[in-house]
Amino acid sequence: MRLLGIDPGLLHTGWGVIDVDGNRLSHVANGTIDPPRDGAMADRLRFIFEGLNEVLAAHGPREAAVEETFVNKNPDTTLKLGLARGAALLAPALAGLPVHEYATRLVKKSVVGTGKADKGQVGMMISVLLPGAAIAGEDAADALAVAICHAHHAATAVAQRREVHA
Amino acid sequence: MRLLGIDPGLLHTGWGVIDVDGNRLSHVANGTIDPPRDGAMADRLRFIFEGLNEVLAAHGPREAAVEETFVNKNPDTTLKLGLARGAALLAPALAGLPVHEYATRLVKKSVVGTGKADKGQVGMMISVLLPGAAIAGEDAADALAVAICHAHHAATAVAQRREVHA
Repeated sequence: MRLLGIDPGLLHTGWGVIDVDGNRLSHVANGTIDPPRDGAMADRLRFIFEGLNEVLAAHGPREAAVEETFVNKNPDTTLKLGLARGAALLAPALAGLPVHEYATRLVKKSVVGTGKADKGQVGMMISVLLPGAAIAGEDAADALAVAICHAHHAATAVAQRREVHA
Repeated sequence: MRLLGIDPGLLHTGWGVIDVDGNRLSHVANGTIDPPRDGAMADRLRFIFEGLNEVLAAHGPREAAVEETFVNKNPDTTLKLGLARGAALLAPALAGLPVHEYATRLVKKSVVGTGKADKGQVGMMISVLLPGAAIAGEDAADALAVAICHAHHAATAVAQRREVHA
């Protein structure tokens, strides 16, 4: 099963694609989409949407997972995050993929073992879990972490279904 | 020139289409898109996006204008507004339309004459400016108000360009 993880942001949207085979994870590709900062909002969102569409076409993931960061300090920042996340949710949904959302705490817990891990710890664990992968930056590492989080939860859901059906 | 106005919201997204011929405005159509409340976020955004795509296909507006409401009370509300506005900006942008944003204050000032008008005053002025139009509700009235606001500003911009070129 091939999964796409997305860490949405108006300045930098990270993405990462992994393959999951039982307990085995392997890295496929990762990168960052950086829309022009001075464009109209609609054009910046279109840049994110079209960048994700290219990733979907190039790598053909079957499911998508999006990080559900919660920002409450600055309403302007929160609104911008919502705009970017809207584009990030729409691209895979319109391509017909199931789209899951995971809170940042849960993503960190899945990858590092604690919901309070910092960005450095997440990046380090990504290079342990996906050895040899060249990571495009912190946002791409976060996106791979979301994909890994979804892999764990999807596997658990399958195991639970098997138990119920046994 | 045919214009589409959008008042985005996760529960109700209003839309309104008008024709502008010099100073003359005429009503074409208006309505509200109400996504299912209990679906996954990606599906709710897709509902808004696809609803607006149907409006674009049915009425063929040449430009779009989106209301730029600013919410700062509740971060959760602000984030949801951002998500809905992302879908509302993307639909016309991906269809190739220029997409403009107008602050609520400016929309009210354009239609009622004061930035502090309430929803009732906006609705009343809409029925004066677009006589005979059956309005689908407050969100549809707000969407028509955004379209009228854009008509005024586009006309002013053309007049200013003419002055410069004269």
